[in-house]
This record gives sequence, structure tokens and C-alpha cells, in this order.
Amino acid sequence: MKLCTFTTNGQTRTGIVVGESVIDTGVPGSMIDLIRDWDNLKAGLEAKAAAGGGVLLSSVKLEAPIQRPGKIFGATLNYHSHIEEGRKFGADTQVPSRPGFFTKAQTSINGPYDPILITKGTKVPDDHVSHFPDKFKAIFAIADSSTDYEIELVAVIGKGGKHIERGDALAAVFGYCVGNEVTERTWQIASPQWSLGKSFDSHAPIGPWIVTADEAGDPQALGMRCYVNGELRQDNNTSDMVFPVDAQIEHLSVGMTLEPGDLIFTGTPAGVGVANLPPKFLKPGDVVRCEIDGLGHIEGTMVAEA
Amino acid sequence: MKLCTFTTNGQTRTGIVVGESVIDTGVPGSMIDLIRDWDNLKAGLEAKAAAGGGVLLSSVKLEAPIQRPGKIFGATLNYHSHIEEGRKFGADTQVPSRPGFFTKAQTSINGPYDPILITKGTKVPDDHVSHFPDKFKAIFAIADSSTDYEIELVAVIGKGGKHIERGDALAAVFGYCVGNEVTERTWQIASPQWSLGKSFDSHAPIGPWIVTADEAGDPQALGMRCYVNGELRQDNNTSDMVFPVDAQIEHLSVGMTLEPGDLIFTGTPAGVGVANLPPKFLKPGDVVRCEIDGLGHIEGTMVAEA
Repeated sequence: MKLCTFTTNGQTRTGIVVGESVIDTGVPGSMIDLIRDWDNLKAGLEAKAAAGGGVLLSSVKLEAPIQRPGKIFGATLNYHSHIEEGRKFGADTQVPSRPGFFTKAQTSINGPYDPILITKGTKVPDDHVSHFPDKFKAIFAIADSSTDYEIELVAVIGKGGKHIERGDALAAVFGYCVGNEVTERTWQIASPQWSLGKSFDSHAPIGPWIVTADEAGDPQALGMRCYVNGELRQDNNTSDMVFPVDAQIEHLSVGMTLEPGDLIFTGTPAGVGVANLPPKFLKPGDVVRCEIDGLGHIEGTMVAEA
Repeated sequence: MKLCTFTTNGQTRTGIVVGESVIDTGVPGSMIDLIRDWDNLKAGLEAKAAAGGGVLLSSVKLEAPIQRPGKIFGATLNYHSHIEEGRKFGADTQVPSRPGFFTKAQTSINGPYDPILITKGTKVPDDHVSHFPDKFKAIFAIADSSTDYEIELVAVIGKGGKHIERGDALAAVFGYCVGNEVTERTWQIASPQWSLGKSFDSHAPIGPWIVTADEAGDPQALGMRCYVNGELRQDNNTSDMVFPVDAQIEHLSVGMTLEPGDLIFTGTPAGVGVANLPPKFLKPGDVVRCEIDGLGHIEGTMVAEA
């Protein structure tokens, strides 16, 4: 099943996407409420989907399927191809022996087709840059803003839990969607802790809907592509992950309870802007399209913050 | 005013603390709802506080004043005394030229007097430890668990906003409370990204209530003490911060919108367990008490996770 959050006539609801239509679920509350009560709701929603009806998708506004995730994690250096390209610009990236994660703020969530901000006032002061390794100084010198794209498979937690063993981990996933793990590079590099540079407003576009795990198929066999202004920049497959989704969930849940609607951005493959010489950062007017086999696509236009 | 979240007769509500009593605010919803509507509610709640009444604090259970913060940040290396002690165990800590932050998960929030978990299954595998610098290996060898305390002043965001200038930053704060920024040290050190090691369930005890900013006074002039089993371990003053609260808010809000109820753990002074040789990590049965002048104290007993 494909489940979305949509706005029509000023009201935001959850819906089932069937072909070119969206059918109101009739379930009160947000997508997180729906996920929490999924076992009780599933049969009824399947019947609704089979009955058809609804309104044209093109007549509503699709929102981020989860608007306020409790937690958002992002996997660090989790595609072999991305680790390799990191060396191009002097990063001493190695294949990690253990999963790593930063976080994104819940306020960074963005609709699948909404504009993405190039944030004002992000220039890192020169007296701070002087503390950083020479290999990074060129990046800081290039631009006041350094907004970059990263296509990622996003896992949406369903039942969740704690101390989840790898063999049980995929059963804790509700479904999957496409994410653009937008990053302000200079802010990422300017601190050993990446979370701030990953958490700017509008920098977590997700969608266009959640495809439930039963329908999405093997999460480690999905082709994924990211285009900027129609130019193919990232072209890979989730099979290139160092730590697959189940291993990520096992690691995250050792200390923490994962909850319905928590999101895991599972890493990005080669082709990000910063890995070009010189870096290809995003400019106002650029259109970034991210698509994953079976999950659909999201597409946002970059806008300079007023 | 002192505002708390408390449970009595199975119901959780917000309350005003006056002396040894708590007066139900009568405001529907959570503390975050109350903070959002503070401008409209303040005069009425002041009148309630002046009228007195309520029930004995000792007859209710105090909960974390904010139970589900949208965002929780923690300042890295933000006390001169803590930076200095880091060098004792070989960390090459320098006074930073710019604020730094990790995050804590919203699921790590814990009540002010609730037990704190020593989480099971946290041993970092030997084949991973071998990748880390020798200076850290001794710590990994010591214990399966490495749970540590950190007393911190916690700023509770009120109005919040984005692009907040330093001169306006304290006006964006609703109030302050005491926090214990509990940390699983091996997990913190085992990844360059600290957020996971800072986010274990129950590892963000806060409270016992929020003291509104007008009553708390200068946030950079508060004495703070942390005791383990009655032994004074941390004894400092918020005046020792490298980046005071207003500078932290200015930095955080460059890219992100800060919202009502977001929390900032503003850093810890010298005296944490890991800075002892050998480290003094917490054991089941240990009692950790954190107190800050004018804000009260929180106190939790360590328990081994079943």
C-alpha cells in the first residue's frame, strides 16, 4: 500500500494512493497515529483501496508523509561508492567497521515538492576556518553557501522497539520513502558533530508517500537516481550499502527505543556535489529530483532565503 | 514562576510550584502547549499562584517538565574546566573558536527522580576498538558499560525563532531547569558522531521544574554541583562557560527554527567520571544528585537494565 499525507481545502489528512488517485483514510490524526494503530487499521484500509474512488492526486498538495518524526537518524559514509569518492577531495574516508549516525532536526522535514532553502548567513568566519585542515579550506573559500543534495532510501519505523536483533529488524519497519538528505557542507565540516549542518529548515524533503514494507520488496535491491536540472548526478543501488537497513536498526536500538514514525536516512551513494572539483553546490533555481525504484520521486526547487 | 509536569491519580498535568505545594494550572495539554500560549496565560497563572492552595508536592509524582521536546541539543566542550580535564586522559581538547553541538533523542527524557538505566549489551566489539587511538583503548577495556553523569544547565526555548541575534537570544528562552546529561562513554568515543552515545533511554533526566527566565536571573552566574552517593564530583558555576547561553542560541538558530519546548543542555564543567584515572563510571545502586542555585535539584538511582 502507498500511504501519503495530503492537504485539500485547507485540511491535512492521511490518504491511500491508488494509481493517479488518493483516497482519504478517514483515520483521525497524523500518519504516526496511523502507524501506531496499523494492525487494527490495515484490513479496513486495504478494503478502501480496493473499493477505489477518491480524488485525483494532481488536485491535492502532497505533504511530507511524516510531518514531525520523533527522531531522525542519518547513516554516515554507508555506500562503498561514496566512501571512495570522499578520497577525491582529501577526506581520509575508510570503510567503517561499525555503523555511524548523525541526526536531523524534526524541523528540517520538507514536503516532497516544496522549495528547499539556501539559507542566508551561513558563511563560516575566517578566524574559524583557519583552524581547519588545508584540504577543507578550498571548500570554505568557494561559496557563502554550500548546500548539497544526497539521495537516500528512508526507512520509516513501524513497531520499533529496543534491543532489536538483526533478524527481526525488517519486521520493525513500516515502510520506505525517498529522501533528499540536504546538507550545508561548510557547517558539516566546521564541526566534528554533523547534526547542525544536516538540520537546517527544509533540508529533509521526504516522500512522495510511504510504500509499506510488504510492497517495497527487498530494501537492498533498489535502484536510485538523483538529477540536478535534469543532469544525472547520483546513479546507484541500495545494494551498495556497507551496513544494510537491518544492521542499522540493530545498532540504533541497542540503547534507544525506536518508535512509530521515526526515520532512518540510510546513507547516500557517490555523486554528491562536494565530491566534484570544484564542488557543485546548489544555486537558487536549481531543481533537484530524487527517485528510487518502486517508491516514486520527490523534486524540489532551490530558493534563496529572503 | 516555577512550572512543573506532575502525575496524580493517574493523570498528568502541568502545575505551578509554590513553596511545598503544586497548583494545577488548569491549562489543557502539555507544557509545550502552555509555553506556546504563555503570553495569554501568564497573568492568569500568576493570579492562581498568588491565590495559593493546591496539593502537597510530596503527594504527587514530578515528571520531566517537558516530556517530548521537539529538539534537544547538547553543547560540546563548553566549560573551561572540562576542556582542561579532558587533557588528563589524553584527549587533545582545545578551547573551541565556535560553539559545537550534538543531539539527544527525545526518547532519552527522564523524570527528575526516576531511575536511570545502565543499558545492557553496550560492549563495543574488540574488532572495532582496535581501530581507535591507544589513548582510548584503556577506557574500552575497563567496563562493559561506561555510563557517566554530567550536570548541566538546561535552557528551555520559549518563543524561539530563526536567525536570532545574540542580543535578542535570552528573550527567546522560556526558562531553565537542571539536567543530567547522562552519557554512555564508550559509545560516545566509538563514533566521531556523539549523538547515539548521548541518546540512550532515560539518559536525559530534567527538572525538577522549569524556573521562568525572569525568576532564574542571570544564567551565567549560577552555582552547580553534582554528587554521586553524597560525594561532591562537580562543583562549578555557569560563569565558566566558553559560549554563554545567548551565543549558543544565536549559533543554533542560523539554520534552524527553534521552537517552544526545545531544550539546550548547555555543557558540563569538570569532574565527570571519565576524567578520573581510572574512570569512575556509574554502577547499579549509585545515586546521582544534580543541583543548580535557584533551580532545585534532581536525583536518580542507577539501575541495571533487566
